[in-house]
Amino acid sequence: MKIVSGMRPTGKLHLGHLMPIEKWVELQNSGNDTQFFIANWHAYTSHRDTPQIIDDATLDLVRHYLACGINPEKSIVFIQSAVKEHAELSLLLGMLISVSRLERVPTYKEMQENVTDKDLSTIGFLGYPVLMATDILIYKADAVPVGEDQIYHLELSREIARKFNMTYGVEILKEPQPIISRVAKLPGTDGRKMSKSYNNSIIIDSNAQELKSKIMPMITDPARMKRTDPGDPEKCPVWDFHKAFTNSENEKQWVTGGCKSAGIGCIDCKKVLLKNLEAKMQPIWDNLSNISEADARDVVEKGNARAREIACNTMNEVRCAMKLRW
Amino acid sequence: MKIVSGMRPTGKLHLGHLMPIEKWVELQNSGNDTQFFIANWHAYTSHRDTPQIIDDATLDLVRHYLACGINPEKSIVFIQSAVKEHAELSLLLGMLISVSRLERVPTYKEMQENVTDKDLSTIGFLGYPVLMATDILIYKADAVPVGEDQIYHLELSREIARKFNMTYGVEILKEPQPIISRVAKLPGTDGRKMSKSYNNSIIIDSNAQELKSKIMPMITDPARMKRTDPGDPEKCPVWDFHKAFTNSENEKQWVTGGCKSAGIGCIDCKKVLLKNLEAKMQPIWDNLSNISEADARDVVEKGNARAREIACNTMNEVRCAMKLRW
Repeated sequence: MKIVSGMRPTGKLHLGHLMPIEKWVELQNSGNDTQFFIANWHAYTSHRDTPQIIDDATLDLVRHYLACGINPEKSIVFIQSAVKEHAELSLLLGMLISVSRLERVPTYKEMQENVTDKDLSTIGFLGYPVLMATDILIYKADAVPVGEDQIYHLELSREIARKFNMTYGVEILKEPQPIISRVAKLPGTDGRKMSKSYNNSIIIDSNAQELKSKIMPMITDPARMKRTDPGDPEKCPVWDFHKAFTNSENEKQWVTGGCKSAGIGCIDCKKVLLKNLEAKMQPIWDNLSNISEADARDVVEKGNARAREIACNTMNEVRCAMKLRW
Repeated sequence: MKIVSGMRPTGKLHLGHLMPIEKWVELQNSGNDTQFFIANWHAYTSHRDTPQIIDDATLDLVRHYLACGINPEKSIVFIQSAVKEHAELSLLLGMLISVSRLERVPTYKEMQENVTDKDLSTIGFLGYPVLMATDILIYKADAVPVGEDQIYHLELSREIARKFNMTYGVEILKEPQPIISRVAKLPGTDGRKMSKSYNNSIIIDSNAQELKSKIMPMITDPARMKRTDPGDPEKCPVWDFHKAFTNSENEKQWVTGGCKSAGIGCIDCKKVLLKNLEAKMQPIWDNLSNISEADARDVVEKGNARAREIACNTMNEVRCAMKLRW
């Protein structure tokens, strides 16, 4: 299966981004034809006023992809803006989708209401799902790994593909299927959504000491005031971290049992989490220290060329269907 | 001065298109640095379902530009879709302009209300003025010849240029000045707006006999029922045609005087118009019969390359300002 996915370069990756990338690695290593890109044009919808952030994050994101196990021998790793055909197809697909349809995308109004420090009033932001559809359709992806909040976007991509094929009487664009991750969202260290702006996130590009300084003061079940109070793991973000990073069932039982019976303290619980997280992160940290920005640049230079070739082929078909000789 | 303008390939050109092209020729021949393009991507905002019409009209429009006096030795003649950088810049400029600003463009609601046989609900149609701004800004045009209905679009282009320069602290995009044509709009042969759908237009690619068959039955001042009734030129579309195509002041006085005094009949008046129109059109018809589609293709192949070079230079500056390394 051809699989395509990408992330926006708007800052340092945090632990919440690990799970999606691990899913990518799993898909890559199970014989799929995978492409992972840096959605840098998308980043301008929210970060147009701080382009240096986008630039800094772009190759850094490539380094993270590689450090987490994306293998450029197996996957095409590329930069969206290096394949100009995305802009051309996005413009053309925009002729097929109505403004009101895009205004009904749930994340559109939601983000406009919640994000108050960015200008999300632009046609660029309204057109975000069209560009996103383009990123997928231009490579004729069979499937796209998505979080639950992106299922609607993918449905829109399918709709745009159908509309294009129907309008021009062709079967050029493929309707991508969702690969839905069942992984629950990782909360921040304070139990709220993990977000840079809440200062409750743990970045991937870190080290053992920083990790400790983030994990040990984590908020736990607020009802467990004293060491002798029994706790409720379901009300504790540390438990959410264990679910994501503690693989041993024994340890998990030790955590939940000990918490509920007050058999263990929160410090004990966090120490086990820290051990497991460190074991998980150490190879990634090692990789990050071995992958330079120049390495990342080499990888994407090759990946860009490969992606461009596929995109050009699709565009030749699209232009032919639309009678665009130029 | 660098001057840029273009027309949409959505069908045969009619007499109403002559005046703008004559203005272009005048600008070309007075030492300006002129570029004239075929806005074929724009055509998809209204004609996406009939791409063959756009394709047929594209090189035909080039033939008309040339037949009317556009000289490829003096002007760059090119096809919008051949310069992919227009799509890239349009995407990027879309990050700067709000949906509500675009919804307030007077022609937006107006066309949505009046044009009922096309789907103008799309984001492509909403984004029309952004792409239009791109067409101008990417060549750093000093000025753009516009009809009065396009002044608002040009003002928007100026606004987008300012917004870009301000956001990125540069002086890359130039605010184009309008060159406003004072020529009144030519009505159709029935006095309504000249339009293919009203079947009241006279196409340029015609001949003497066809011209006669269109001019002689033209509607005149409806109050002039009999030959002996005096007429009012201001209520007569034939007089609008005289204003556009009769150069001799003597003849114009003969027309208005004869009409008001019933000294001449409508047939007499139309015959003079026909003579003048024929004299005007004959060289254009001759040119059209001498310019093949292959000639037009040669012209735009060269023009596309020249336009692309300028567009690429601007895009290098734009990407640099936006910290887009790719």
